[in-house]
Amino acid sequence: MSSNSDQKPSQKPSQKLWGGRFAETTSALVERFSESVSFDARLYRQDIRGSQAHARMLGKVGVLSSADVDAIVSGLDGILADIEAGRFEWKTELEDVHMNIEAALTARIGNAGKRLHTGRSRNDQVATDLRLYVRDVIDELVPLIDRVAGGLLDLAEREADTVMPGFTHLQIAQPVSFGHHMLAWREQILRDRARLLDCRQRMNLLPLGAAALAGTVYPIDRAFVAEQLGFDGVTANSLDTVSDRDFAIEFCFAASLTLVHLSRWSEELILWATPMFAFVDLPDRFCTGSSIMPQKKNPDVPELVRGKTGRVVGNLNALLVLMKGQPLAYNRDNQEDKPPLFDTVDTVSLCLQVYAEMIPAITVRRDNCRAAAAKGFSTATDLADYLVGKGLPFRDAHHAVGSAVGFAAKKGCDLSELSLDELKGFSPLIGQDVYARITLEGSLNARNHVGATAPAQVRAAIARARQNR
Amino acid sequence: MSSNSDQKPSQKPSQKLWGGRFAETTSALVERFSESVSFDARLYRQDIRGSQAHARMLGKVGVLSSADVDAIVSGLDGILADIEAGRFEWKTELEDVHMNIEAALTARIGNAGKRLHTGRSRNDQVATDLRLYVRDVIDELVPLIDRVAGGLLDLAEREADTVMPGFTHLQIAQPVSFGHHMLAWREQILRDRARLLDCRQRMNLLPLGAAALAGTVYPIDRAFVAEQLGFDGVTANSLDTVSDRDFAIEFCFAASLTLVHLSRWSEELILWATPMFAFVDLPDRFCTGSSIMPQKKNPDVPELVRGKTGRVVGNLNALLVLMKGQPLAYNRDNQEDKPPLFDTVDTVSLCLQVYAEMIPAITVRRDNCRAAAAKGFSTATDLADYLVGKGLPFRDAHHAVGSAVGFAAKKGCDLSELSLDELKGFSPLIGQDVYARITLEGSLNARNHVGATAPAQVRAAIARARQNR
Amino acid sequence: MSSNSDQKPSQKPSQKLWGGRFAETTSALVERFSESVSFDARLYRQDIRGSQAHARMLGKVGVLSSADVDAIVSGLDGILADIEAGRFEWKTELEDVHMNIEAALTARIGNAGKRLHTGRSRNDQVATDLRLYVRDVIDELVPLIDRVAGGLLDLAEREADTVMPGFTHLQIAQPVSFGHHMLAWREQILRDRARLLDCRQRMNLLPLGAAALAGTVYPIDRAFVAEQLGFDGVTANSLDTVSDRDFAIEFCFAASLTLVHLSRWSEELILWATPMFAFVDLPDRFCTGSSIMPQKKNPDVPELVRGKTGRVVGNLNALLVLMKGQPLAYNRDNQEDKPPLFDTVDTVSLCLQVYAEMIPAITVRRDNCRAAAAKGFSTATDLADYLVGKGLPFRDAHHAVGSAVGFAAKKGCDLSELSLDELKGFSPLIGQDVYARITLEGSLNARNHVGATAPAQVRAAIARARQNR
Amino acid sequence: MSSNSDQKPSQKPSQKLWGGRFAETTSALVERFSESVSFDARLYRQDIRGSQAHARMLGKVGVLSSADVDAIVSGLDGILADIEAGRFEWKTELEDVHMNIEAALTARIGNAGKRLHTGRSRNDQVATDLRLYVRDVIDELVPLIDRVAGGLLDLAEREADTVMPGFTHLQIAQPVSFGHHMLAWREQILRDRARLLDCRQRMNLLPLGAAALAGTVYPIDRAFVAEQLGFDGVTANSLDTVSDRDFAIEFCFAASLTLVHLSRWSEELILWATPMFAFVDLPDRFCTGSSIMPQKKNPDVPELVRGKTGRVVGNLNALLVLMKGQPLAYNRDNQEDKPPLFDTVDTVSLCLQVYAEMIPAITVRRDNCRAAAAKGFSTATDLADYLVGKGLPFRDAHHAVGSAVGFAAKKGCDLSELSLDELKGFSPLIGQDVYARITLEGSLNARNHVGATAPAQVRAAIARARQNR
Repeated sequence: MSSNSDQKPSQKPSQKLWGGRFAETTSALVERFSESVSFDARLYRQDIRGSQAHARMLGKVGVLSSADVDAIVSGLDGILADIEAGRFEWKTELEDVHMNIEAALTARIGNAGKRLHTGRSRNDQVATDLRLYVRDVIDELVPLIDRVAGGLLDLAEREADTVMPGFTHLQIAQPVSFGHHMLAWREQILRDRARLLDCRQRMNLLPLGAAALAGTVYPIDRAFVAEQLGFDGVTANSLDTVSDRDFAIEFCFAASLTLVHLSRWSEELILWATPMFAFVDLPDRFCTGSSIMPQKKNPDVPELVRGKTGRVVGNLNALLVLMKGQPLAYNRDNQEDKPPLFDTVDTVSLCLQVYAEMIPAITVRRDNCRAAAAKGFSTATDLADYLVGKGLPFRDAHHAVGSAVGFAAKKGCDLSELSLDELKGFSPLIGQDVYARITLEGSLNARNHVGATAPAQVRAAIARARQNR
Repeated sequence: MSSNSDQKPSQKPSQKLWGGRFAETTSALVERFSESVSFDARLYRQDIRGSQAHARMLGKVGVLSSADVDAIVSGLDGILADIEAGRFEWKTELEDVHMNIEAALTARIGNAGKRLHTGRSRNDQVATDLRLYVRDVIDELVPLIDRVAGGLLDLAEREADTVMPGFTHLQIAQPVSFGHHMLAWREQILRDRARLLDCRQRMNLLPLGAAALAGTVYPIDRAFVAEQLGFDGVTANSLDTVSDRDFAIEFCFAASLTLVHLSRWSEELILWATPMFAFVDLPDRFCTGSSIMPQKKNPDVPELVRGKTGRVVGNLNALLVLMKGQPLAYNRDNQEDKPPLFDTVDTVSLCLQVYAEMIPAITVRRDNCRAAAAKGFSTATDLADYLVGKGLPFRDAHHAVGSAVGFAAKKGCDLSELSLDELKGFSPLIGQDVYARITLEGSLNARNHVGATAPAQVRAAIARARQNR
Repeated sequence: MSSNSDQKPSQKPSQKLWGGRFAETTSALVERFSESVSFDARLYRQDIRGSQAHARMLGKVGVLSSADVDAIVSGLDGILADIEAGRFEWKTELEDVHMNIEAALTARIGNAGKRLHTGRSRNDQVATDLRLYVRDVIDELVPLIDRVAGGLLDLAEREADTVMPGFTHLQIAQPVSFGHHMLAWREQILRDRARLLDCRQRMNLLPLGAAALAGTVYPIDRAFVAEQLGFDGVTANSLDTVSDRDFAIEFCFAASLTLVHLSRWSEELILWATPMFAFVDLPDRFCTGSSIMPQKKNPDVPELVRGKTGRVVGNLNALLVLMKGQPLAYNRDNQEDKPPLFDTVDTVSLCLQVYAEMIPAITVRRDNCRAAAAKGFSTATDLADYLVGKGLPFRDAHHAVGSAVGFAAKKGCDLSELSLDELKGFSPLIGQDVYARITLEGSLNARNHVGATAPAQVRAAIARARQNR
Repeated sequence: MSSNSDQKPSQKPSQKLWGGRFAETTSALVERFSESVSFDARLYRQDIRGSQAHARMLGKVGVLSSADVDAIVSGLDGILADIEAGRFEWKTELEDVHMNIEAALTARIGNAGKRLHTGRSRNDQVATDLRLYVRDVIDELVPLIDRVAGGLLDLAEREADTVMPGFTHLQIAQPVSFGHHMLAWREQILRDRARLLDCRQRMNLLPLGAAALAGTVYPIDRAFVAEQLGFDGVTANSLDTVSDRDFAIEFCFAASLTLVHLSRWSEELILWATPMFAFVDLPDRFCTGSSIMPQKKNPDVPELVRGKTGRVVGNLNALLVLMKGQPLAYNRDNQEDKPPLFDTVDTVSLCLQVYAEMIPAITVRRDNCRAAAAKGFSTATDLADYLVGKGLPFRDAHHAVGSAVGFAAKKGCDLSELSLDELKGFSPLIGQDVYARITLEGSLNARNHVGATAPAQVRAAIARARQNR
């Protein structure tokens, strides 16, 4: 015996395509709760492209007549044009992008529209749309990354000879080339680029044909569809295909690490722009002021980029949580993959755009960089290395330099400003040649191997990068 | 010497309120990147309420004339009416909700509008808006939770006597009352309710007066503003006030745990709705079908709720990442607190609404619940406890029951379907009174203390709950 | 028909307590995979305390003889002493802390030991242990927070008159009192304290009595156990009780926000310790040097605290993921609650300890703080406010000050170093009284209301704090 | 003037290698707080291997004598042997694995030991150790994944013809082959494998030579070291090199997705093992029982795997938070990269091991799988497709099948159990050939294209997989 629940009677049976077995219509609240067209309409290009390829294949294998195929393809072209012109009306009661477009198609071309869905299901359809979408996004992001990386290369070239303090623990460590620092940023973003391309390659397989979960009884030609849509092949297992969102998660991971890198650059720009450092000027058009404090110029763009990092990391996390513990095959949970994915796409794209535009416009305050490098005894290591070269054990050299640093600190000058006699007081091994080593340039130029900071190496690295383009 | 960066010359100096020291206008891309009005317009009610209280206070302490105060208050009332009627035009170039409303006010009432911002800053203004907003949200969520909890109470009452298998490790463990199970859900949501109220109490202090970061030179009366806005007091430190987002994070945590609970209920409903369990029927209006498979009825609502859990957990994570390592006081990063917060509010609110509507409509398939409880030897523990009561050490009792379970399994019946002679074969201590213990009802009723599953206890718990309302 | 899997035959039936129905012993790999004693042994104090209270209750209600109760209580006392003396041998094959202690007890006192488990299950036992543990932890952390907060109060008092630049966007904004800044930190940690206490209060209910999931058939007295263990009452629902880990998650959330706060302090100390700021000296004993660079002194402690933030946030995340989608009642997944919880406890405790020790030892370099505040035109707002006070509309005042700032910047001096004639050039409203307003002290002292930065307010806040202790 | 902080005087100047400029020793608490040897000792193999290669290179370029090189290499061999034999004493006061090994080396071979550190720093040393370590881990995990994937292939072959219900939304959708389901799992883990290999390739560059942050003045030969250590090349930028932890984060991401997959398998095994499904038996040695409930057999291993997912996702999150906003170059925060990384390694490795051992031992209860597939009208789609093949529009076919389903449900039988006459009542197009289509096997076999569930396709997929090995 079942309990009598006080079911609110609904007006009439469902009018949904799938409503045959249903005795009451969907609750208005549930319709609002479960619709996705408000966000998945964004997939319309991919949805139409995929449907056109599917229709052509159905024609090729004889399931659809060529007249039907033509009607479908041109009908979808018309819908595409309407959407892009802002003339298409999206309807929440049609649930999602797929049903909206299919309903519009049938309204335009009649029964042929109803035959489009033969041999497929929304489960493999949305998987196809999403893969095409992520692939399109990657194909837009990679050139954007190239613009950013190119901007860094130009800036590195411009500032190859600019001396700034290299920091560890945010303490002044050793002098480095500003250009070298820009190339460090470039290495980070190049890894991000490579991760995106790995993701693209791994995902570039056609889902269509998996149908609801088990494949279809129609004599489909998956390879033909794959080729039309630019896929490298077809997915290998239908159950996996309709439930797999690895590619979206992997994309969001690559984006997260990109944002982590951009947040690190932002942290540095914010530091360099504070009056306490004053290493760079950001152009006014990337800053805002204060309605209260007349003297303020705030580095809003890097701050916002830093702030957006949490959002993208949160989105990655959302997707991992989403998939955790889901049984095969498709579950409705997966509809929730889109908001985090789309937000990630928008965020990483916009952040890369502002960096692409901002990097060339950074003004380096070379005098301040140099002055800061000069003040922290940043060449103390060089003096110790000099003494080691003269035969002193490093431990003794370290001690002698410690004393010299103390002496110079009291005198209020840098090591390189001590006289030879003064320096000899700490070790008789010190000769006139020491000065070439303990100036900022001496220190910089001495680090002259692949990956090191000598301006000559920076230029060589730039040359290699330009050649590899 | 500074480098010559190839700065794209901008058209003309900024027209922004803060633009005095700026030589070029904000880049269009940056304007798009940094605007917040597209999402913070949602705060208009709180912004207007806060401004009216601030204006009244400025009047009280003599900074504004009463004519100015009146103009401001009624001007803002007019703007509020326009916004709610959909007649207000939000402008991206005015950046945020605050500037949009202030500009509109000045356009309406002239110079008095410009005087509204005296003694405050956007930093303490947005902090005030956000606290009012989160407080309003909590004040809407608590009654919604009460509806959910009330629905569970009613369902628990209806099904207090319904026997179902209690699971541990998803294996059948012991019989429980379906009503008892519903009360377990209720306990979870009541803790969520308490966490929201703790959060509300902790946050209910006025930020206004912190100004940009250090307080203001005007003779403001913070207590007066606090009282008008329903705050319990004022915040204690201006630097902390403009940078603090603890309350938003704490809210998102409370929401995360709420969604974790709802995802657990959803997991159970999805299990109970599969034909393999068939413990409940969800009303058609909470389900959808398949355009392909005519027999399908899918539990979309619980699936979507389960799927939305990741999103809310991701939002919490985003906010923690956002704040990590930020120096005092306000940084622009904080603008990014709003999208995760707003998405969390919308999600938790909608999920609670659908549960509030769905719970009363759940139909329990009592026969199936009972049949499942009967089949897994769920009263084996009771037989062992019975033997312990007769003086047998538990270890021996456990062994005897193990043998009896094996015998019944081979015979294809439950323990309670064995004859007394058959049972005595496993222990001579077994008497006729055993049957009262090893039936499902016997097992249920024997667990009769506070917190246990006996229907009498379930009813007592319900009675206590109704009394405490 | 079942398939023939190539099962590796195991040596002999299980010797586990629960092994009656099992035909083969646990795989060695699985034993290693599933044991928890290597980490849950940490709960021994709580486990023993809970068992003693349970035994006394069983005696009180007549399930155990008083001889058995005495044997159990003193036997457990002996085990406790052995564990604390390092004489107890933990055995992996006994799985967890509960079985290890129970087995040792039975080895010591014989059959009475076997009767201890009457009327309970490991499910409610571990829930009790964990609640006692988290409560003990909170009771240790709160005094530690009080030490940190007290240290901040003392430091705030010492530096109430120290002027430093207040930053927004890491740009110099307005002068603030160093003491005021320390009080901002204190506000953050006081909210953390309050969250811990809310968590404690919410969790302080006895789980014992829930047994495996449904309660027990024995005539237990839960209130008696609760009272003995210092709980405020008993949990209300057995199914909820054995599956609930809200309290552990809530604790980890409170700890996450604490670490986020400490990471913000750390970020500031790292900034203040860099030679570019040089606002503070951290004592040598909190720093390390470089084996390579003789001049380095690194702020390792704040760096490590900042680094540990990710770990604690990750632990919170782990627990939310753990619980997501779990059906009732107990699942073995829950064993995984302990490593993230314990790591969180250790981390937050250690970080608070080092801060408690470090704060009193921070040396403020007052001259540098003051010099930095003087250089960024940090009193420009005050000059504008002065002009508003003389009747100028704020917009015009803002413009005049902008010009004055430009003039002083060119001259290379601060606003307060301009002559009265020079200042009058920007507005004839300026008089001799302006100097009292645009000096650093003038600016500070003018922000004189509750929550603002005037040293008088800082002292008042300190006095209130000392009174409330 | 600086403030007088109440510094507790320390006993004596530091004896640390870097202690020259320090006036007091490290606090005991700080030493405990900042040591890493308790966890990074795990890197000893990689540390020694890297040091030996570095020493050989220093010999090759003439910085070290060949006698020194020999002494270092054999000294380190001895230390390695001691560590592996458990004879090495790790000392917390020596901070980390690097200093412990270097100190032991110097104690053994004298001054040559002190010369080992020439031209490197702990910053590039730890980066090298970590890359070698992650590479070693991947080289162990890939064969483990191959074992798991191989086990799935064998199980898929064994159960290629086993019919089970395919689920969507956990509702019965269409019949699928159990073997097909296993191949779906295999696809997931193969993507994980590919991600690990991509990570390996991207990271396989030598960090040594970056030194502290800027490179070194010694004439090092990085390519020689890279070749000795099996790296494909050298890193390109010293600042990036010492601060980069992308490889560790990418590894933890690959591991997170692996655990998400394993958690999905676990969810299914837990479902299949509940009496409500009863699709599989897990061998006793992978399960545990209950000390209370004699009938219980719990699927602990999959539950624990599912539970460990949160931990690994939390670790990934920890590392992303760790790096967010860090300025270049090395910061001490990075020491905190190891605990999450090591925990991830241990967890993913152990989970794969238990799955490798468990999969071959899964017993499929074929009758139950088949019976479940038969009961949910899982071939309704096939009947509709059959009618479409006879010329009926799909919409009409869908309606006819709906009616037939209703009729069969009332009669209490499956569609394939209806007589031809009965079926014809729903559509005259139905003929005798329908039965071959609407049996379970008919449905299965009809889905016969690449990726679909027909047993012939399953076997073909297995054959392809075996060939590609």
